[in-house]
Amino acid sequence: MALNPQYVDIGKGFVAQYYALFDDPNSRNSLVNMYNNELSFMTFEGQQIQGAPKILEKLQSLTFQKIERIITAIDSQPMFDGGVLINVLGRLKTDEDQPHAYIQTFVLKPAGGSFYLQHDIFRLALHDQA
Amino acid sequence: MALNPQYVDIGKGFVAQYYALFDDPNSRNSLVNMYNNELSFMTFEGQQIQGAPKILEKLQSLTFQKIERIITAIDSQPMFDGGVLINVLGRLKTDEDQPHAYIQTFVLKPAGGSFYLQHDIFRLALHDQA
Repeated sequence: MALNPQYVDIGKGFVAQYYALFDDPNSRNSLVNMYNNELSFMTFEGQQIQGAPKILEKLQSLTFQKIERIITAIDSQPMFDGGVLINVLGRLKTDEDQPHAYIQTFVLKPAGGSFYLQHDIFRLALHDQA
Repeated sequence: MALNPQYVDIGKGFVAQYYALFDDPNSRNSLVNMYNNELSFMTFEGQQIQGAPKILEKLQSLTFQKIERIITAIDSQPMFDGGVLINVLGRLKTDEDQPHAYIQTFVLKPAGGSFYLQHDIFRLALHDQA
């Protein structure tokens, strides 16, 4: 499969869609539909999780209600299977916590004319006040 | 090709090897050997670069002599082609510049019993003092 020339727009569009759902506690759990039942990996603050059912448990465990998010940069690259690698740098403030820089990396895998989310790595940069 | 069960060690080993070469101005240009002549992508502070010759030009343009680097986290995931996705969060101080958080994402692609570096995305978090 060829490189997808739309990788920049796909990256931006995906990030907007993902965070719109994530940042609203009423829609957060519906993100599970973006992951494959077995073939998706999530690493959340170092915790390794595989497959949509376990990923849903993780999403359900995130209880913050209010999220203020600033996206600093979205860097995307086309992948040789037609997928897209997306790197997000941003700042995040949940409920009454301090704001922190964070990073999130996504790999979108093509499947049936669309994509699923095959890889997802999230880290807060807790030491960015040092 | 199956998932590589050694992905954690491969990620850590690669990161140590990459930065040992990068942080010494005398060996930095030799990193070009990790990239494929055509099939490697680098995104450096938003600048898109493809292929080892252009990547070498970028490496040669980085003139800082002294680098202090602290690795905060290395998160790796196995990929379904036998490759490894690696996410690095760290802090970086070059020459007399201020220290900044940075993120770097690597995708290692299996080839001939080893790997080459297919994807490389680097971003400084310049706003982490805000």
